[in-house]
Amino acid sequence: MKLRVHIMLKPGVLDPQGEAVRHALGTLGFDGVNGVRQGKVIELDLAETDEAKAVEAASAMAEKLLVNMVIESYRVEVA
Amino acid sequence: MKLRVHIMLKPGVLDPQGEAVRHALGTLGFDGVNGVRQGKVIELDLAETDEAKAVEAASAMAEKLLVNMVIESYRVEVA
Repeated sequence: MKLRVHIMLKPGVLDPQGEAVRHALGTLGFDGVNGVRQGKVIELDLAETDEAKAVEAASAMAEKLLVNMVIESYRVEVA
Repeated sequence: MKLRVHIMLKPGVLDPQGEAVRHALGTLGFDGVNGVRQGKVIELDLAETDEAKAVEAASAMAEKLLVNMVIESYRVEVA
């Protein structure tokens, strides 16, 4: 089963990468860009076939390895 | 208007980061992980209020700066 873990910085956490992208877009002539936030998507291809168990496993993987729980939040989605 | 640009490596392109994550998950005792692919999500907060124009602008930004069109594919989604 394929799942996606969407990981974003928590609101209020400074996003230097997003700021750099915003600045670069302005330099390239794109105006009207009020804000840019950058996150990660991790696609997991699991052998588990039961959806609930797969989501539970993905969440455990997220909290143990994939996500910095101090500054990031995540959500799991079945692909 | 808020939009999300989802960027993933094209199928067939080697994903060393994904492989590293898969290996680490195995080391942590997570079995049944057949594959891991890592991508980016870029959240754009645009001043544009017309949806079609905003999606068009986000696509132009993606193709000009955010996406490596040789090895990555992208899709734009209204958040």
